[in-house]
Amino acid sequence: MKPLVETLCVIGPGLIGSSILRRARLEPSIARHLIAVDRDAHVCDRARALNLADEITQDATAAVANADLVVLCVPVGVIPVVAAAIIPHMKAGAILTDVGSTRGSVVEGITPYLRPDIAYVPAHPMAGTEHSGPDAGFATLFENRWCLFTPAMNASPEAIATMEAFWQAMGARLRHMDVAHHDKICAIVSHLPHLLAFTICNTADTLADELRAEVLDFAASGFRDFTRIAASDPIMWRDIFLHNREALLEMLDRFSQDAQAMADAIRQDDEATIVRTIERGRRIRRNLIENKQA
Amino acid sequence: MKPLVETLCVIGPGLIGSSILRRARLEPSIARHLIAVDRDAHVCDRARALNLADEITQDATAAVANADLVVLCVPVGVIPVVAAAIIPHMKAGAILTDVGSTRGSVVEGITPYLRPDIAYVPAHPMAGTEHSGPDAGFATLFENRWCLFTPAMNASPEAIATMEAFWQAMGARLRHMDVAHHDKICAIVSHLPHLLAFTICNTADTLADELRAEVLDFAASGFRDFTRIAASDPIMWRDIFLHNREALLEMLDRFSQDAQAMADAIRQDDEATIVRTIERGRRIRRNLIENKQA
Repeated sequence: MKPLVETLCVIGPGLIGSSILRRARLEPSIARHLIAVDRDAHVCDRARALNLADEITQDATAAVANADLVVLCVPVGVIPVVAAAIIPHMKAGAILTDVGSTRGSVVEGITPYLRPDIAYVPAHPMAGTEHSGPDAGFATLFENRWCLFTPAMNASPEAIATMEAFWQAMGARLRHMDVAHHDKICAIVSHLPHLLAFTICNTADTLADELRAEVLDFAASGFRDFTRIAASDPIMWRDIFLHNREALLEMLDRFSQDAQAMADAIRQDDEATIVRTIERGRRIRRNLIENKQA
Repeated sequence: MKPLVETLCVIGPGLIGSSILRRARLEPSIARHLIAVDRDAHVCDRARALNLADEITQDATAAVANADLVVLCVPVGVIPVVAAAIIPHMKAGAILTDVGSTRGSVVEGITPYLRPDIAYVPAHPMAGTEHSGPDAGFATLFENRWCLFTPAMNASPEAIATMEAFWQAMGARLRHMDVAHHDKICAIVSHLPHLLAFTICNTADTLADELRAEVLDFAASGFRDFTRIAASDPIMWRDIFLHNREALLEMLDRFSQDAQAMADAIRQDDEATIVRTIERGRRIRRNLIENKQA
């Protein structure tokens, strides 16, 4: 059976990249030959120890020369830099994709370097854990998770179909949407929650010593739920915050106004507003359960 | 063997109250006779169907007349009202306690009704789930969870020792602290996270229709973690917010300033501040894991 692509090259075999490679190892329908690239020798060593690919190298330009599909799994801030470095060395007819969590800034950053004979098909798998690095990945990471496609550039219908089949083989469900919509959704469902999680940890960290120690003891009462995602990779999240700045700050602004309204209601003993706010929260939660997302 | 108390009366057999009764059913060392009281006939019916106690009644004043220990498991806003109603009917030498999540307002509210021959020993078990009602409880709810004792009033060392033994029999770990400290800790580890959870659900709920529908689809990316606790009981939380107003608004204010600082850093491309903030969040998370609270 002919695989989807002959040679798959993953640049950045961290949580996402190594999960792609692990899945490709299990599903021979995806690719015949697997290449992992990382500029960091230690990451390459771990990738070798974990046997993540057939070829593991620090040399991206040599690696992409033979690849039919190149998947960029690096922080969104460096995607354009890496794209600029590799695109001139890619072979004609190959597909380029990236898994970045922001779309507007990545598309803008990558566009000047695109070649007419390379299909750029961006697709963002909404999957992850709070862990990072080659050891953190697993073959079922994308199982039943959404993969969001935004408009492809220079891409034939065949190239788009290949990427759809690729993410289906990874176990994901597909959705197509435009760039601005993608960035807003991610701002509210992922980027704002992460910002709030990092922030509440900071607030706790600035408490007087005795209180701070006790926060750790008594975290099970709600605080703990907020901190799991605060263990996520700092560089990845710095880049996401900076590259989805507009949508994220808009959502944070709405959130801050809502929090202030709640504070005012508490200050003014406004029981009806407090209960109405809580009831709305419960409704969303019920919808999540009905939607099998909880 | 003589049990800790002859007759235990739980007023409000919801999540916490029914968990106390379930545990007491399993541990005959706690009480010989169990009474459950609720003003709501439907709750009494459920308590009967679940066989939560030996005696189940809507008549609080008759029930407490025979009790050696009365545990108030009602929302903090009505604790003083219920206390005022039952204290005149309690028998001399009995112990009164409540499980309220706020201390300052409860102690203030209950003090005018205390009798010199009744020991008031407040203890707050830091346990719960997002579910509520008699069906939601379970016998192991307090296992290895903290129970926070604040200073007892009119209480002999024996009465305090009885309550310590009671909560140990429930499976809890004990900690003593003053009222103001208790309220600050709960504000940061529990009340503020709940307020933020309710708020982000509201923010999502006010989005344009299409975006809101998609928040539900894509909630797995962080949002979901924030919404579990937003399913909690509205009246209970309304009361907690109003009765721990000062400490909660102080923590919300610190949090809002920290969130604003993060927004400023994002707006100004201040990479160092963003990374430092995220790194602090990760440190707290690591401490939680080391502390076996994660």
